[in-house]
Amino acid sequence: MALIVHKYGGTSMGSTERIKNVAKRVAKWHDAGHQIVVVPSAMSGETNRILGLAKEITDQPDPRELDVIAATGEQVSVGLLAIALQAIGKQAVSYAGWQVAIKTDDAHTKARIASIDDVKVKRDLDAGKIVIITGFQGVNEQGDITTLGRGGSDTSAVAVAAALKAQECLIFTDVDGVYTTDPRLVTEARRLSTVTFEEMLEMASLGSKVLQIRSVEFAGNYKMPTRVLSSLTDPLLPLEIEAKSGTLISFEEDSNMEQATITGIAFNRDEAKITVFGVPDRPGIAYQILGPVADANIEVDMIIQNQSVEGKTDFTFTVPRNEYTKAMQVLANDVQAQIHATGIIGDAKVSKVSVVGVGMRSHVGVASHMFRTLSEEGINIQMISTSEIKISVLIDEKYMELAVRALHKAFGLENP
Amino acid sequence: MALIVHKYGGTSMGSTERIKNVAKRVAKWHDAGHQIVVVPSAMSGETNRILGLAKEITDQPDPRELDVIAATGEQVSVGLLAIALQAIGKQAVSYAGWQVAIKTDDAHTKARIASIDDVKVKRDLDAGKIVIITGFQGVNEQGDITTLGRGGSDTSAVAVAAALKAQECLIFTDVDGVYTTDPRLVTEARRLSTVTFEEMLEMASLGSKVLQIRSVEFAGNYKMPTRVLSSLTDPLLPLEIEAKSGTLISFEEDSNMEQATITGIAFNRDEAKITVFGVPDRPGIAYQILGPVADANIEVDMIIQNQSVEGKTDFTFTVPRNEYTKAMQVLANDVQAQIHATGIIGDAKVSKVSVVGVGMRSHVGVASHMFRTLSEEGINIQMISTSEIKISVLIDEKYMELAVRALHKAFGLENP
Repeated sequence: MALIVHKYGGTSMGSTERIKNVAKRVAKWHDAGHQIVVVPSAMSGETNRILGLAKEITDQPDPRELDVIAATGEQVSVGLLAIALQAIGKQAVSYAGWQVAIKTDDAHTKARIASIDDVKVKRDLDAGKIVIITGFQGVNEQGDITTLGRGGSDTSAVAVAAALKAQECLIFTDVDGVYTTDPRLVTEARRLSTVTFEEMLEMASLGSKVLQIRSVEFAGNYKMPTRVLSSLTDPLLPLEIEAKSGTLISFEEDSNMEQATITGIAFNRDEAKITVFGVPDRPGIAYQILGPVADANIEVDMIIQNQSVEGKTDFTFTVPRNEYTKAMQVLANDVQAQIHATGIIGDAKVSKVSVVGVGMRSHVGVASHMFRTLSEEGINIQMISTSEIKISVLIDEKYMELAVRALHKAFGLENP
Repeated sequence: MALIVHKYGGTSMGSTERIKNVAKRVAKWHDAGHQIVVVPSAMSGETNRILGLAKEITDQPDPRELDVIAATGEQVSVGLLAIALQAIGKQAVSYAGWQVAIKTDDAHTKARIASIDDVKVKRDLDAGKIVIITGFQGVNEQGDITTLGRGGSDTSAVAVAAALKAQECLIFTDVDGVYTTDPRLVTEARRLSTVTFEEMLEMASLGSKVLQIRSVEFAGNYKMPTRVLSSLTDPLLPLEIEAKSGTLISFEEDSNMEQATITGIAFNRDEAKITVFGVPDRPGIAYQILGPVADANIEVDMIIQNQSVEGKTDFTFTVPRNEYTKAMQVLANDVQAQIHATGIIGDAKVSKVSVVGVGMRSHVGVASHMFRTLSEEGINIQMISTSEIKISVLIDEKYMELAVRALHKAFGLENP
C-alpha cells in the first residue's frame, strides 16, 4: 500500500469511453490498496480548439486571458473522471489548481509551480477517496489563473507527487515508454526499460515529446521515481505486470542501465534561428541582445557568437518556432537600435537533431561519428552545441527525418 | 456617467464574430463615460455539449462534479470577451466567480448567491478597466465551485449590479424585449415597453424564458432597474436610442404602465405531474410528501389536495420535467411506504399556460373568460392555480400552442 500519482494525457482522456477506461485502471490500483491521486490532461484537441477561438479574435491575445480560457479544458476532464469513478462505485473528488493552492509565478502561459498545499488532498485520501487534480494550471499570488505551457500536466503530476511524497508517479500516455527515437520516424526504434534522469532531461528538452522537460526537472530535483507507460493496454491488465511496464526514469546511474554509448536520437522539428549581424564585440552585448528576449518570456536554446572581425561580431540563437515572430519584434523594437546592429535575419524552417547518452562521457569519437554520418547523407550542419551527455546539431528542416534515421542506424540503436 | 452592468446571453456570445460585436457594444458604452461590468453566458450550445459528456458516462452524475464541468463554459466566454475588448484598445480584465468571491449556498447545480465581494471590481473600474465576470457560477464556503442553474447568468448580472449599486442592469438577449407571449408561437405578440416587477416575476416563473426567475427576484429585492433588450441590433446603434429600447422592469406600478387588464400569456411546456393516491388525510401529510422532494432540491410548482373521502385523499403536484424521474424515485424510496399511500402515478407530458397582469386585481371575470376560451377550443383543464396577478392552468402538452394562441386573441393582446 502506497501513495501513487497517475497522470493521463489528452489522448487517454479523448472520449467518454476512454475516460471510463481510465476510471477502470485507476480503480484497479485503488482496489489493490493504494492511495491514488490522478492528474488528467484536457480531452485531446480541446485546448487547441479554445485557444483557436482566441486566435480568431486577435493574433496576440493577452496571456492572462489566454490562461483563463486554456485552464477550462482540464477542469472538464477532472469532473468527467470523478463522475466516471463514482459510476463504478468509487468515492472521488475533483479539484482545480486554485482549489488545492497550486501556487505559481506570474509567467502566464508558461508559469512555474512554487508550492502545493496538500492538506485537502491528504484528508480526502485518508477518507478513502480518489483525488483528481487539474493538470497544466495553478494560481499566482494575485489569485489569477496561470497555466504551465504545453505538456504542463506532466509537470503538475510530478509536482503533486513530490508534494505528497508519493512512492511513484505514473505517466500514462499513448506511447508505451521512451524509445531510442520516435518510432513514427524510425520503425526500428526500440523501447528503453530505464533511462537516467539526465538522459531523459536531454531527450525531453530536445523534443522527444514523451514528457515535458519541467516534469523531468521536477522529478530530478525531488528524486521522484517517474514511469512512462501506456494507457492503451487493457485497463484490467494485471497490476503486477502494469507496474513494471513502460520506461522508468532512474536516479541510480549504474544500477541496471543498459551499457550502450548512445541511448537515443532526439529531435525538435519546430525551431527557428535568428542572427543579429554587425554587433559590437564588447562585454555585456550578449545580455543586451538576450535580456529583452528573456524578459518577453521567450526561451532561447542554442547560442553561437562568431569570432569578431574588426571589432564586430555576429550573434546567432534559436527559439521555439511559435515564438519566432515575437522574438523578431522584440529585437526590432528593443534591441537593434540600442546596440547599433547592422541587421537581423531569421530562418523559421530549421530543426534540431541530437544524440544523447550517459555512456558518451567515457567514449571518444561520438561527435566525429555523428558528423561523418550527416556528411555522408549530404546534410549541412548550421549550428552545433554539446553537453556532457549530448551533441546537438541544427539543420535544414527538410533533412530532419533523414538525419534521425541515418544516426539511429549509425549508432546501432535498433539492437539491444 | 454611471456604473452599468451588461449581460449577454449564449446566442450573443455564440461565435467569435458575435463576441467582437459584443465588444464593440460594450466599448460604445464605455466611450460614453460609463463604468461597465459585463456578465456573459457560455457560448450557445457549449454548456449542453459538456453536460452531455457527463450524461454519456452516467445517468445521474454527481452534482458537485457537474458544476466543476458546467462552470467552464462561462470561463471561456469571459476570457474571449476580454481579449476582444483589448483588441479594440480597451483595458479589460476577466474574473471567474470564485475570484470575486461570488459566495453561494451548497445547492450544487442550483445554488443561490449569498454575497459578492466588490473590492477588486471597484478597484479595476476606478482604474478605467472594463470588468468581465463569469455568469452562472460561484463558490461555496468549502471553496467548491457551484452553479446557479439554467439562466443563472441573468441572476449573476443582477446580483453583481445590486452589489455594485449599479444604475441599471441591461440584459442583452436574442429577443428585443418582453412580449405579450412568445412571438415564435403567436405572430401577433406585441413588445411591452415596461412591465412591473410582479408581472415579470410571473412571466419568468411561468416560462416566458426571457429572464431567469431568480434574477427578477434579485431585481425586485434590490429594486435594481433591469432592462431586457436586443443584442442583435447594430452594435454601433446610437447609445441614446439603445438605452431606451427593449423592456424595462419597473418598480413604480402606476407610473407609465399600460392599462390593460392582462399583460401577457406565459407558458411552460416542460412540466410533469405526479399524483399520490390514497393518502391518509391528516395534519402534516403534505409536508411528509413534499419535504423529501424539497430536500432533493426539486422545485414543486402547482399543488392540489382533493377533498378527502373516507379519511383518504389524493395529492397532486407538478415538478420541472427534467426532475420527474428523480421525484418519482424519492417518492418510491422515501415516501410511499411511510405514509401508506396506495399508489403513485405521473404524467410527464403536461404544460402550463397562464394569463398574467397587475390589472387583474381590479377586474372580475378574467378567470371565467379564460376558462370559457379553453372550453371553446375543447381543451381539458387538469389543474388550476391562481395568484393576485395570474391564473395558471395545467393542460395536455399537445394543446399548449393552441391554448396560448386562443388566449392571446381572446384578451386582445395584439392591440396596444
